[in-house]
Amino acid sequence: MFHRFMFRRAVILGTGLLGGSFALALKKHRLAAQVVGTSRQESSLRLAQEMKVIDEGTLDVNKAIQGADLVVLAGPVKVILGQIQDISKHLRRGCIVTDVGSTKTAIVEAAEKLFPPHVLFVGSHPMAGSEKSGVAHAREDLFKDSVCVMTPTERTNRMARDKVKHLWTLFGAEVTTMEPAAHDEAMAYASHLPHLTAFALMRAIPEDHLKHGAAGLKDSTRIAGSSAQMWADICSSNYRNVLKALDESAKSLSEIRKAVVDRDEAALMQLFNQAKAKRESLEKKSHV
Amino acid sequence: MFHRFMFRRAVILGTGLLGGSFALALKKHRLAAQVVGTSRQESSLRLAQEMKVIDEGTLDVNKAIQGADLVVLAGPVKVILGQIQDISKHLRRGCIVTDVGSTKTAIVEAAEKLFPPHVLFVGSHPMAGSEKSGVAHAREDLFKDSVCVMTPTERTNRMARDKVKHLWTLFGAEVTTMEPAAHDEAMAYASHLPHLTAFALMRAIPEDHLKHGAAGLKDSTRIAGSSAQMWADICSSNYRNVLKALDESAKSLSEIRKAVVDRDEAALMQLFNQAKAKRESLEKKSHV
Repeated sequence: MFHRFMFRRAVILGTGLLGGSFALALKKHRLAAQVVGTSRQESSLRLAQEMKVIDEGTLDVNKAIQGADLVVLAGPVKVILGQIQDISKHLRRGCIVTDVGSTKTAIVEAAEKLFPPHVLFVGSHPMAGSEKSGVAHAREDLFKDSVCVMTPTERTNRMARDKVKHLWTLFGAEVTTMEPAAHDEAMAYASHLPHLTAFALMRAIPEDHLKHGAAGLKDSTRIAGSSAQMWADICSSNYRNVLKALDESAKSLSEIRKAVVDRDEAALMQLFNQAKAKRESLEKKSHV
Repeated sequence: MFHRFMFRRAVILGTGLLGGSFALALKKHRLAAQVVGTSRQESSLRLAQEMKVIDEGTLDVNKAIQGADLVVLAGPVKVILGQIQDISKHLRRGCIVTDVGSTKTAIVEAAEKLFPPHVLFVGSHPMAGSEKSGVAHAREDLFKDSVCVMTPTERTNRMARDKVKHLWTLFGAEVTTMEPAAHDEAMAYASHLPHLTAFALMRAIPEDHLKHGAAGLKDSTRIAGSSAQMWADICSSNYRNVLKALDESAKSLSEIRKAVVDRDEAALMQLFNQAKAKRESLEKKSHV
């Protein structure tokens, strides 16, 4: 029997946790005749090939994308921005390009500015992954039961949008759609701030006291184990929203500090109950 | 066959998550002939009796403690401090008293000042429980694989200390010993700060953005669902250490903020890698 693949040559630029999981999901659903991966590290490529995450690996991005009809930009945001520039002139007509970047405004703007009209870009942010990174942790079901935010604009090709949406849906994600700017503002609060808070908290605890940490400390700082490079990139590319969120958080912390200084039990109770009520509504509202 | 109980009448003042779990563990190990519980809410007592957490329940603390040879102070810190005052003159000779309070200096000082010499007090802080509260969540194995910090002083009766340590060990906890002041300083960083951070973070996120929260936000704010009363009490009773920890945390956050403002990628990488390395050492050091 003849199986007709949706893509002939799918290329993953950055075969890490997300890129590797995307590649595995493509293979699981037999969506690409050939899955090619790139990495900046030869050892990652070797591992990706051993794990059968990709059929072919290369350090050379421009070689990888030759003849591609699907390109997935799966590195950190800054790398993605550089790659959009590098590959823009070398993609074949009709090639669909998407990404997995955690911030969207800078990426969507660069793609719409630099890709020629015959390259069909649509932005994606799969909210999956964890504090772990690297292809060693890639899984074909990483996107199952997660949310993927897509950020099409009025310039996005409809067929490309539908095909990419179809992929994420097949991979088990619930797809939602947002404007790039609205996405970045929401993520500054719902994702970037919690990560920066966890980094800050971890730094504030003296080494000697770590051994007294129980489950509360562990859970609340799990994400402080995330990739420093990835988070530096997110801060740079979303810095206005991140600053706004950081300031809101500093204000919230200083309101609690004031109530502690004043030993104002009623104020503390009110502040904590506000937080508790919001946490309870999070449990109901969140997709995942 | 005749079973000789370690205690004839064990009394739990405050039959909530911790007190109720202590009662269940006493029963599981057949350590007390009778387990009596108090609560400020009649509905909790009724539930505790229905769940067979206690044999007898009363709203009247002074009635409860009559004839007790073990009393466990299991309410919030402020309630414990009031009860030490209230019950000090009414405990029978040789009665062992311990507590489950999250801060120890104020409680140990009050107990050593107010209890007569024939009452044998030793402080305990079982680091178990969760954001859930109330006897409905009580479990006989709540303390299994947890850490219990005991805070005996030079005035602590050795037999009482050994018996209480024996209880926690039977309940499955690893018992460690600290000075009350050292305990409170360590906990300000390893436990109180993460909780206050989670409360502050939750308050800082606009309601509209909550639905975009993924696993990172959920894990890092789980403890923001904790009891407001319990945490107001902890802040009051440990306020000097809590302030020191809050200031350290604000400093850490503002260092990150500065690097974001400066768009200083090298600084961000350094700050995040510091946090990441500490988080990795937490995974190795922590008892639980």
